[in-house]
Amino acid sequence: MNDLVIRPATPEDIPAIVALLAADSVAVSRESPDDLAPYYEAWERIAADPNQHPSVAVRAGRVVGTLQLSVIPGLSRTGATRVIVEAVRVHSDERGNGLGTLLMEWAVERSRELGASLVQLTSDRSRTGAHRFYERLGFTGSHIGFKRQL
Amino acid sequence: MNDLVIRPATPEDIPAIVALLAADSVAVSRESPDDLAPYYEAWERIAADPNQHPSVAVRAGRVVGTLQLSVIPGLSRTGATRVIVEAVRVHSDERGNGLGTLLMEWAVERSRELGASLVQLTSDRSRTGAHRFYERLGFTGSHIGFKRQL
Repeated sequence: MNDLVIRPATPEDIPAIVALLAADSVAVSRESPDDLAPYYEAWERIAADPNQHPSVAVRAGRVVGTLQLSVIPGLSRTGATRVIVEAVRVHSDERGNGLGTLLMEWAVERSRELGASLVQLTSDRSRTGAHRFYERLGFTGSHIGFKRQL
Repeated sequence: MNDLVIRPATPEDIPAIVALLAADSVAVSRESPDDLAPYYEAWERIAADPNQHPSVAVRAGRVVGTLQLSVIPGLSRTGATRVIVEAVRVHSDERGNGLGTLLMEWAVERSRELGASLVQLTSDRSRTGAHRFYERLGFTGSHIGFKRQL
């Protein structure tokens, strides 16, 4: 794994990130990899917000993983800052080699650096393998994640 | 409910918000209502971030409800912006009178105004009454919420 770099995403990474987002059986219907325009528009909103940290894992010049960290200052939990992790994906070629663990351990360490005392994420109920993975990493599935489309 | 106002929170609301946060059996051990200093420090971080919307419901000059909306621009879901709702509390005097529903309907409408296409929240597994409440409001408990303390 010596050649792996985890770094902030750049606009040049967008096609590879979208390919990873769309290469997922749960999420494929939500993405439009043949029309990247909405992703470039979203990038403008992300880049304008210093609390957003879209990130990529790169090996030999190829994006092989991605996630986004969002820093959320709040009053609850005695004024705790939390980090929310969204859009975690690992390339199918790279599953089972520890990249997911490295990526999430990096996310936890980066969250500490960003001042967070809590890291949280939600995972679709159907992703039972992912749930075991997050539990091994020290996460507790203590909550139900509710979503409503607008 | 004619005298109810839902508005952005101000620093003057912090003692009342903290009292609401602490008056909760699940969360009481996480709060320090006798020492507000960490909350005022957290307020500085919240106020510096235009994507944070701490909010209060006020009736007859008294804070009777609170929640925080956090706007998160992202790449996933074709560049969707989502709103995360945290720290939802309703005063015990006001339960069962529809205030919770009004507050959450306000949160959904405000999220639309803020450009979100998805609203999400997590609720402790033990809050089964709250889960039915969110489902009645059109939320789906499709995810497991994982948290890790740092």
